Amino acid sequence: MPYFDTASAAPLHPVARQALQASLDEGWADPARLYREGRRARLLLDAAREAAAEAVGCRADELVFTPSGTHAVHTGVAGVLAGRRRAGSRLVVSAVEHSSVLHAAQAHESAGGRVTEVPVDRYGAVTAAGYAEALSPSTALACLQSANHEVGTVQPVAEVAVVCAEAGVPLLVDAAQSLPWGPVEGAWSVLAASAHKWGGPPGVGLLAVRKGVRFSPRHPADERESGRSPGFTNLPAIVAAAASLRAVRAEADAEAARLRILVDRIRRRVVRLVPDVEVVGHPELRLPHLVTFSCLYVDGEILLHELDRAGYSVSSGSSCTSSTLTPSHVLRAMGVLSEGNVRVSLPLGTTAEEVNGFLEVLPGAVSGVRERLGVTEPVPAGVAAGSAPESLELDALGLRCPQPVIELAAAIGRVPVGGTVTVVSDDEVARLDIPAWCGMRGHAYLGEAEREAGTAYTVRRLV
Amino acid sequence: MPYFDTASAAPLHPVARQALQASLDEGWADPARLYREGRRARLLLDAAREAAAEAVGCRADELVFTPSGTHAVHTGVAGVLAGRRRAGSRLVVSAVEHSSVLHAAQAHESAGGRVTEVPVDRYGAVTAAGYAEALSPSTALACLQSANHEVGTVQPVAEVAVVCAEAGVPLLVDAAQSLPWGPVEGAWSVLAASAHKWGGPPGVGLLAVRKGVRFSPRHPADERESGRSPGFTNLPAIVAAAASLRAVRAEADAEAARLRILVDRIRRRVVRLVPDVEVVGHPELRLPHLVTFSCLYVDGEILLHELDRAGYSVSSGSSCTSSTLTPSHVLRAMGVLSEGNVRVSLPLGTTAEEVNGFLEVLPGAVSGVRERLGVTEPVPAGVAAGSAPESLELDALGLRCPQPVIELAAAIGRVPVGGTVTVVSDDEVARLDIPAWCGMRGHAYLGEAEREAGTAYTVRRLV
Repeated sequence: MPYFDTASAAPLHPVARQALQASLDEGWADPARLYREGRRARLLLDAAREAAAEAVGCRADELVFTPSGTHAVHTGVAGVLAGRRRAGSRLVVSAVEHSSVLHAAQAHESAGGRVTEVPVDRYGAVTAAGYAEALSPSTALACLQSANHEVGTVQPVAEVAVVCAEAGVPLLVDAAQSLPWGPVEGAWSVLAASAHKWGGPPGVGLLAVRKGVRFSPRHPADERESGRSPGFTNLPAIVAAAASLRAVRAEADAEAARLRILVDRIRRRVVRLVPDVEVVGHPELRLPHLVTFSCLYVDGEILLHELDRAGYSVSSGSSCTSSTLTPSHVLRAMGVLSEGNVRVSLPLGTTAEEVNGFLEVLPGAVSGVRERLGVTEPVPAGVAAGSAPESLELDALGLRCPQPVIELAAAIGRVPVGGTVTVVSDDEVARLDIPAWCGMRGHAYLGEAEREAGTAYTVRRLV
Repeated sequence: MPYFDTASAAPLHPVARQALQASLDEGWADPARLYREGRRARLLLDAAREAAAEAVGCRADELVFTPSGTHAVHTGVAGVLAGRRRAGSRLVVSAVEHSSVLHAAQAHESAGGRVTEVPVDRYGAVTAAGYAEALSPSTALACLQSANHEVGTVQPVAEVAVVCAEAGVPLLVDAAQSLPWGPVEGAWSVLAASAHKWGGPPGVGLLAVRKGVRFSPRHPADERESGRSPGFTNLPAIVAAAASLRAVRAEADAEAARLRILVDRIRRRVVRLVPDVEVVGHPELRLPHLVTFSCLYVDGEILLHELDRAGYSVSSGSSCTSSTLTPSHVLRAMGVLSEGNVRVSLPLGTTAEEVNGFLEVLPGAVSGVRERLGVTEPVPAGVAAGSAPESLELDALGLRCPQPVIELAAAIGRVPVGGTVTVVSDDEVARLDIPAWCGMRGHAYLGEAEREAGTAYTVRRLV
């Protein structure tokens, strides 16, 4: 049963399992104690720190273990903001950071700080120029992911690091998605990562803070981990995390080359196999194991259920799969279609057969969902003639994604080329998906207008 | 090789190991995901929460898992203080709380809050009257441990809970040391605990917040664990923690009765086997598996090394075993001897033979340390007569514990009964250990006076 959601959590690596077993016997005691069990634990901890620091590309005394990648990000962001509060209170983040970074930014804003979001292009990539523009003399910290967790786009970290260094602003890199594949290039200042993304056990994050970066922990004092990560050391998991990082790195290049071929296959075939699909994320500058696409006229949650029933575990950034009923902030920032969104992230060792199996199942799953939603083939252009009205208005109030777009697609043929259709919707997703649909179908999106109930989105038929 | 420091960390329980193994296969995925691996993880998480809540004595939806007991305490304290900031900013804690509570209190003070410490008696116990006196209309939260981690004294939680309820103040109980032995009695509001104290793996704490307690998390937002514990769920460890808590509870009564006999044996024999020793902590109201004593004229760190060499792992609250060179705040708050301090905490399954072996080794270890420090048997009273000076002053500046007390013991015989000896010392520990020595030897402690260099401690010889 193929599991294709390793960007969320990777199954435990065999090396991690082995190391965990061994350190359950050797590493349960308090490494701060002086007796033999404590000394043994200390040796294991020191060795794990050395191994992790080598993989990250920093000194061992710059790296601490945290209880999760989220803790590493929260601690790193808060620690630099506090350490540099004399420089200013501005935090610069990209619009497509992981929620842990954006939540830390929200907490900073709630406490009176200021946040600037750097926009991304349609591929989800920032530019160094975008950061240069956002940085100001009062910027305390800039954050940028090494690669995006939803669409796999690799960010220009080294270039952004140069821009940050010129401005005298430290750069925190969330390396959660890329660290298994290699160290982060460029002169970053702070780095955060998460072991369960590379087949380590959950319960371990990494936080590296370069010497010279002003850092002032915000949590209550604690002697462990240089005062940067309170709580009893989760040593067996730390040992397993470090061992598996080393093991994953040893096979990273070969495995990346292999998985890139499988992902390319998905990228190429999915647009041939499934009508009305958009592959999102950068076509070349991307993680080797991850591909994301969105399907018009499809409810993401139903599609995930269908794929799950067929034996494939994937995830989605569609609004209907989130508890808040809003599409992923990444897809929104990119301005791409969010309905029927599917993220496939292949674990190490994924076979071509597994990927082929997925590609066999996918078209039927998508068309099955469309049938259930009453979607027939898009009405061909030009059937409306003569007495067709120049403009139409559709009341889509109360309808949830993907229904407003389905209604629009069904109606567009009822106006002549040059005519307009206006969709009145109170579903937040319409703001993203109606313009995306226009782009995909070759129509012009004319803009939105607030109504007493909902928002009116107007589209001009062009083809 | 007997390990007698289970109050610091307990070796992994066999049931925890089994559960951990199983859940490494079944529980590595994200329990928030809808596919089968996620649903399986969610089932495991729900079952673990039910089991832990039953052991704690709360509703499952009142309990969240944190990355450690320290995180549970920090989150619990900060969350209630923020939730009740309209009531006031005062935090009431006992003087002998675990450092995680005291550090949270310090953080509160640094942020402008106010903290009141409730004193303890010579056994380390608070009274409900002490809490009643400390509570005020502006008290946001009171904290009390269920039992002390250094001396084993059980606190009157149920009585203090009544006093808090009358004052309308929530009570947070740090149950880290007692939870393996049974649920905390009384109407507590918030409870924190740590799995590695009961043979669960590290990386898991419990935080229970009763319905109706105003609680406002202070960390950045996160959907997991009811918004009270950010970061990816450490599910295998959580499953193991819940399973071992249940297993430990099943044998708790029988094991407590058995270990209590062994601890009683240590309490009784240590004072017969080792001269000049003081057993500290409450003689009856105490944890079943823990006993603490202090040895006059002994360097705690050297003693720990001697015991370690003999195969026994114990811990100490002596100043020389701490990085700050101050004795444990618990011993200080109790006003008992801190030099040569030894805490013995027996793991489940400790045998009588292991305890007998320790009692065989201990007297030689103590006398060996005393010999190395040049301590002969205390000078018998009355040898000084006729020409002895009425008062003596000893310059002990620069000497570290236990030397000032050794100097005092060697000098007391040089003044007649009724005469005084003044020790001038710049070792912080003298303030605690000189009065304690007086109590043990039957002399009168007359008080201290600041000197240009150090402090003068004066003792009147009575016997």
